[in-house]
Amino acid sequence: MDEPAPALHTALTALLDISHPIVLAPMGGVAGGALAAAVSAAGGLGQIGIGYGDRALLDRESALAGDVRVGYGFINWCLSERPELLDAALERRPAAVTLAFGDPEPFAGRVRAAGVPLICQVSRVADARRALDAGADVLVAQGSEGGGHAERGRGTFTLVPELVDLVADTGGHAPVLAAGGIVDGRGLAAALVLGADGALVGTRFWACREALAPAGAHRRALGAGGDDTVATRVLDSVRGYSWPDGATSRVLRSPFVERWHGHEEELAGRLPELAQRYRQAVADEDYDVVQIAVGEGIGVIDEVRAASEVVESLVHGAAAALAEGRARNHR
Amino acid sequence: MDEPAPALHTALTALLDISHPIVLAPMGGVAGGALAAAVSAAGGLGQIGIGYGDRALLDRESALAGDVRVGYGFINWCLSERPELLDAALERRPAAVTLAFGDPEPFAGRVRAAGVPLICQVSRVADARRALDAGADVLVAQGSEGGGHAERGRGTFTLVPELVDLVADTGGHAPVLAAGGIVDGRGLAAALVLGADGALVGTRFWACREALAPAGAHRRALGAGGDDTVATRVLDSVRGYSWPDGATSRVLRSPFVERWHGHEEELAGRLPELAQRYRQAVADEDYDVVQIAVGEGIGVIDEVRAASEVVESLVHGAAAALAEGRARNHR
Repeated sequence: MDEPAPALHTALTALLDISHPIVLAPMGGVAGGALAAAVSAAGGLGQIGIGYGDRALLDRESALAGDVRVGYGFINWCLSERPELLDAALERRPAAVTLAFGDPEPFAGRVRAAGVPLICQVSRVADARRALDAGADVLVAQGSEGGGHAERGRGTFTLVPELVDLVADTGGHAPVLAAGGIVDGRGLAAALVLGADGALVGTRFWACREALAPAGAHRRALGAGGDDTVATRVLDSVRGYSWPDGATSRVLRSPFVERWHGHEEELAGRLPELAQRYRQAVADEDYDVVQIAVGEGIGVIDEVRAASEVVESLVHGAAAALAEGRARNHR
Repeated sequence: MDEPAPALHTALTALLDISHPIVLAPMGGVAGGALAAAVSAAGGLGQIGIGYGDRALLDRESALAGDVRVGYGFINWCLSERPELLDAALERRPAAVTLAFGDPEPFAGRVRAAGVPLICQVSRVADARRALDAGADVLVAQGSEGGGHAERGRGTFTLVPELVDLVADTGGHAPVLAAGGIVDGRGLAAALVLGADGALVGTRFWACREALAPAGAHRRALGAGGDDTVATRVLDSVRGYSWPDGATSRVLRSPFVERWHGHEEELAGRLPELAQRYRQAVADEDYDVVQIAVGEGIGVIDEVRAASEVVESLVHGAAAALAEGRARNHR
């Protein structure tokens, strides 16, 4: 890995003027300014995840990104409660804005009017149509494999080509990014041959030194296999987040999740007590209880790395996987 | 598509002495002798799906395959009830035997003693370890995207590389096949770059003229998108099949499924009535009720074809997708 990563040009790298077709998933509470800047500096697109955050978070993490151009990622239903955060982001002339979870239409016009590339993340074909109608410049096809929140129901493997075909059939040119399960070069290569123009990467960057993930969470997750995650609403309940029906969060299995997943009615009846228990666990950094939001791809991740190393490794690995796949042909 | 399909040699094609790394999923009631023979004749590996069937079915479909070498696929928990079917299959010196759903160990020894390649289908890492311990020559990594039965929980995109690494880490050489969502050349190419040595294909072959799927089911499914399937236990209940906990069947959404999925307790209370209604619907070929077991990949399938055309198209398409992915590199 001493040589610089080979170029891997796609419609995405042209649109965003980046070197590699790799976008940091704007994970709330994980993708702060340091991680976003590191990914952008390495040739990808870093994005600050605003998540449930406020203006103070946006200002603080933006300052940490410094002069490096990054994007901002919003949760649409949270942004509805604090729409001024979008203006604060747009004033910084970001590299892109990502809108996820819910209708992008109320916000899309301001992003486009600002001349900022609009990335819309979707998990269903109908939502992809809505995003294209709203003027999305880039579609993120989010499969169920990914960590954190998603509207489950589709795997990355089938959603990507179906959305690629949808864009083509509607006469559009929006690049499609694969999201959910892309943690190494094989995954990036697979995304490209499925027709995507790049990948949105969460879990692999979660396991980076620049991420806002605590060391204790990293230690716990690196020993896990891909079967050790579950998509659940349990931790949203005890944290008091009212996600829309259909959205679940993929997290590492833990004694707390194993106890309450599938017993949501009983949990609802004991919510004040369990919410208090969760808050205490956060204070204690007790990962038998506190959520670790990672995707199925955690099973092939075994070390915390620098974000720049991850970008290099993804690109080198994709080039190698494509070369190997090609070599099998006509052999 | 006038030229013959290019060779796409992998460890699988060498092991099974086939031309293309494409294996027909042994779908019970769908993959009969005609379809299995057509896939084998086209250079892949066809397999007759025994499913819930008996000796008469095995004899009838074997006769339809004629002299073409095919494999046989069994559901382990069904085979436990009629273990003599394995002997009947092995007497025919099949090209392979696939064991799925439950512990393969009780049957693996007889397959291996007969010198027949043993394919084990798994959806979890622990089951992959068990299959390797039982002597599996080939692992099928079955993601949740696929049609019909599966133990849901993993996407093809993450399960394939994790099992490829597992085989390597345990010093083995078993080829891994990707299953779930592979319906065109892009999917086959993605499977290969993820590290698989081929693909097990169900839904794409279901939509073939040689399949035992009724024309009415074909017509209904070809208009569907990938979001129009759901993994459910509803149709197993009314059909009287006692699948193990955890297994669900991915089927096309229908008025009947929409009514009862998520209302399984109410359904259980009205089972005799609803079972009778289902039987009547089968007699009437009423696809508002009768199951159509297809995977998420149905969204990119729009015509019924001959199996030989499907094999050619998969191989040509994979070669093109790999060439396109490669061309992006260093461009």
